[in-house]
Amino acid sequence: MASDNKAMVVIGAGAGIGGHAAARFAAGGYHAVLCRRSDEAGLQRLVGQIRDEGGSASGYLLNAAEDGAIEDVLAEVERDIGPVEVVLYNLGAQIGDRSLFDTTHKTFELGWRLATFGLFRVAKALAPGMVDRGSGTILVTSATAAMRGNAGQHSHAAAMGGRRLLCQTLNAELAPKGVHVAHVVVDGAVNSPDTLGKMVGGKWQEFLDAKGEDGIIHPADLAEVYWTLAHQPKNCWTHEMDVRPHSDRPWFNGAGLTL
Amino acid sequence: MASDNKAMVVIGAGAGIGGHAAARFAAGGYHAVLCRRSDEAGLQRLVGQIRDEGGSASGYLLNAAEDGAIEDVLAEVERDIGPVEVVLYNLGAQIGDRSLFDTTHKTFELGWRLATFGLFRVAKALAPGMVDRGSGTILVTSATAAMRGNAGQHSHAAAMGGRRLLCQTLNAELAPKGVHVAHVVVDGAVNSPDTLGKMVGGKWQEFLDAKGEDGIIHPADLAEVYWTLAHQPKNCWTHEMDVRPHSDRPWFNGAGLTL
Amino acid sequence: MASDNKAMVVIGAGAGIGGHAAARFAAGGYHAVLCRRSDEAGLQRLVGQIRDEGGSASGYLLNAAEDGAIEDVLAEVERDIGPVEVVLYNLGAQIGDRSLFDTTHKTFELGWRLATFGLFRVAKALAPGMVDRGSGTILVTSATAAMRGNAGQHSHAAAMGGRRLLCQTLNAELAPKGVHVAHVVVDGAVNSPDTLGKMVGGKWQEFLDAKGEDGIIHPADLAEVYWTLAHQPKNCWTHEMDVRPHSDRPWFNGAGLTL
Amino acid sequence: MASDNKAMVVIGAGAGIGGHAAARFAAGGYHAVLCRRSDEAGLQRLVGQIRDEGGSASGYLLNAAEDGAIEDVLAEVERDIGPVEVVLYNLGAQIGDRSLFDTTHKTFELGWRLATFGLFRVAKALAPGMVDRGSGTILVTSATAAMRGNAGQHSHAAAMGGRRLLCQTLNAELAPKGVHVAHVVVDGAVNSPDTLGKMVGGKWQEFLDAKGEDGIIHPADLAEVYWTLAHQPKNCWTHEMDVRPHSDRPWFNGAGLTL
Repeated sequence: MASDNKAMVVIGAGAGIGGHAAARFAAGGYHAVLCRRSDEAGLQRLVGQIRDEGGSASGYLLNAAEDGAIEDVLAEVERDIGPVEVVLYNLGAQIGDRSLFDTTHKTFELGWRLATFGLFRVAKALAPGMVDRGSGTILVTSATAAMRGNAGQHSHAAAMGGRRLLCQTLNAELAPKGVHVAHVVVDGAVNSPDTLGKMVGGKWQEFLDAKGEDGIIHPADLAEVYWTLAHQPKNCWTHEMDVRPHSDRPWFNGAGLTL
Repeated sequence: MASDNKAMVVIGAGAGIGGHAAARFAAGGYHAVLCRRSDEAGLQRLVGQIRDEGGSASGYLLNAAEDGAIEDVLAEVERDIGPVEVVLYNLGAQIGDRSLFDTTHKTFELGWRLATFGLFRVAKALAPGMVDRGSGTILVTSATAAMRGNAGQHSHAAAMGGRRLLCQTLNAELAPKGVHVAHVVVDGAVNSPDTLGKMVGGKWQEFLDAKGEDGIIHPADLAEVYWTLAHQPKNCWTHEMDVRPHSDRPWFNGAGLTL
Repeated sequence: MASDNKAMVVIGAGAGIGGHAAARFAAGGYHAVLCRRSDEAGLQRLVGQIRDEGGSASGYLLNAAEDGAIEDVLAEVERDIGPVEVVLYNLGAQIGDRSLFDTTHKTFELGWRLATFGLFRVAKALAPGMVDRGSGTILVTSATAAMRGNAGQHSHAAAMGGRRLLCQTLNAELAPKGVHVAHVVVDGAVNSPDTLGKMVGGKWQEFLDAKGEDGIIHPADLAEVYWTLAHQPKNCWTHEMDVRPHSDRPWFNGAGLTL
Repeated sequence: MASDNKAMVVIGAGAGIGGHAAARFAAGGYHAVLCRRSDEAGLQRLVGQIRDEGGSASGYLLNAAEDGAIEDVLAEVERDIGPVEVVLYNLGAQIGDRSLFDTTHKTFELGWRLATFGLFRVAKALAPGMVDRGSGTILVTSATAAMRGNAGQHSHAAAMGGRRLLCQTLNAELAPKGVHVAHVVVDGAVNSPDTLGKMVGGKWQEFLDAKGEDGIIHPADLAEVYWTLAHQPKNCWTHEMDVRPHSDRPWFNGAGLTL
């Protein structure tokens, strides 16, 4: 692979948002790097689809909760492929609603480790290079739980809410140096078979049918939002925006789906 | 003019955001309708520029604070040109910072009349048709003052803050019916000679030079944001987003410019 | 009446929050001034109850939507009774949920006139004296609708949201001069026969029974909150706080009652 | 000590907020339990002062970052003294502003461990008993950094912002069961020699003089706020409130002190 390639890395690349974002950036000329925790076959399928479309892509299995794992992959990418121009942090802390009693110390910590600490580690690993080059974009897939806590979301909301303010600190320090941090509040269900699909389980098709064509976010359309954000001119950057299906109520109006 | 034209109306069309938004939508095939309070010559210049580029456009002088004025123009547009598919409400309540003592009842009311009531009137006039057609977009240029009040902004912040929540009520009622309401928080200075330029006055060029190329929002780039919002697919709508130059601090970090 | 009395004025003094606040401050040594739009008999009953308890009180019928009405009463109070040390602005813009179609221009304006403009007028009338004396408190009864717009609240949310930011501008200007502005988000139902009681109508007792003893805000307890706020030392002022029954969900968790 | 005593526990009891809160609740009849990480002599001085005033108090050295330490102390208190009716979580994650480069993984984690995870552990340890008894109060001393991130606050803002949303999840689950969670945004400097005093260092007296009598929060006055919150009737609970000196600008107006 040519070392002058600009890379776009997705941390959390399943068949939903992550995979579609990788494909979108590959179609736009980036080398897409897809990272996910497990399912080598699924990973290679996504990489293969991008290559079949004429794009450039690689895949890594990566446990973001493990010390050094994120840092090693990012270093390898920057050495072997090229500078990471765009990273999409696409991991949440979604472990399903559970009461305080049912939320162990370990579960609470895991949410933080995946949703908050992981982004901090990515920023720490990539920001120096981005600042040196005077450009770079850190995209963060966020959720309703970053805006307010609700019953059963002890780990999830603490991790996502902390991450939202981390994005604000990163933005305050990095934006003047040319690095764009964007926090995208995905305030509705996404057609993502590998995450929401698994949570919903056997009734997934029924769920999709009930939502209807316009009632669930298409990851390809969300990928377009990420593409646009990563290419905003420096005079007109967005730090935070929400997206939801037109038929969903926003979180501040009492969303039905409390993800 | 062909009555099957889809119209895009700008309320508050000066040489800055409004004019550029009109030009962008005209370039994309809309008939652009530019409305402003005064300066017939300036208005015709903007209309002429759009036509010179091969676009379709009309201009109206319109005092949004006057009873019936908005409603009459919108009715005329829908009768003579075509359905208003997109409207950009681009009027603020900016009257310059002034103390409570220096804010008369009349000034306070004028801010509300322009920034809050005017949008309500536009929505009331256009929403029935948009709902009937199952589509339409109401774009609102907002400002820092919609997010928090600050000293000297008694009229401005009350009007803009009320408008922000009005946008939320409109969205709650209209989005499920296919009408997209988007509130864009312009949290930084815009290169707009007819508004900010006049406020800054004689030192305008000096002001621009100090800001630098990337330090002030280009209205053409903001117009692109509006275009993108108006064409988001229904499964992935944005209700609120911020924009600012990368070198500006966000409002929640204490922006220097308190517009 | 002794002209050295310190006065506490309630704008919007029914048998609920307003009446109880007046009684609480009268019990604490203030001369309570109760203002309401109508029902002279009800007004005199409240005044009489305070006097029966040994307190000092007066009553005024006052249409806050009318030019000069607020200003005249406040001037009369300051001339005949004494400086207004505390004012409670207790008027909302609650006209019941209604669609955009059913919200006339007049209704929309009335909401603003009562909830936003009225507070501005009170502040403009009282702030100069309070600043001169270096002390004074402006208490504002607010509601869920000041925090976010929801369907059917076009007038209400625009007026209350604008008022919230007006409170912030007033605070920014007046707090350093010794005048305390406090915005109290009453995010739950209040046991107020004259307002909520009338909205609920014939099933009021049934409504109260369903809520239970701890499930509805007692105006006497809310009055205690106001008393505490008005007597916070200058080193430790609260600008905003919420109150709700322990059994109610907060607005950001999807309140059942959308007042 | 009588085992029927009701206990009030302070996690983070220095000579500022924590010590004064302990003294206030002891004066009101609670057995105050003061916990802090180090300085046995300072701890015993605070305990001694409370006893000298006729109050009941105990002290524990406690490293909240250590596994099991919080849980052990709380179990001991409930066994030897009595049920913990009120707990004040008074630890922050304040490590001084530092750039992303200067914030190590370890520092970032420590902030979370002290400010977020520690509160979760306290809630997990105490909530079952409080829910059984149908009463209890969890008070949380919060800060500006819980409301928005700012440059240099990567660890602090992520930890405090996460904690704020954790408080909301705790409230959503526990309030209906009779447990009151209150998040107090201390948005200004506090006269606390053991924390802010040490950060300011040698110029502490100069700092105090510059602030003036009303320009810095007195911990005794803040302790009164905590007392009031812990005794609100169930029909009228506050989940969040801000406090600041009247002369300070709120965080949303660009606070001078970015703690």
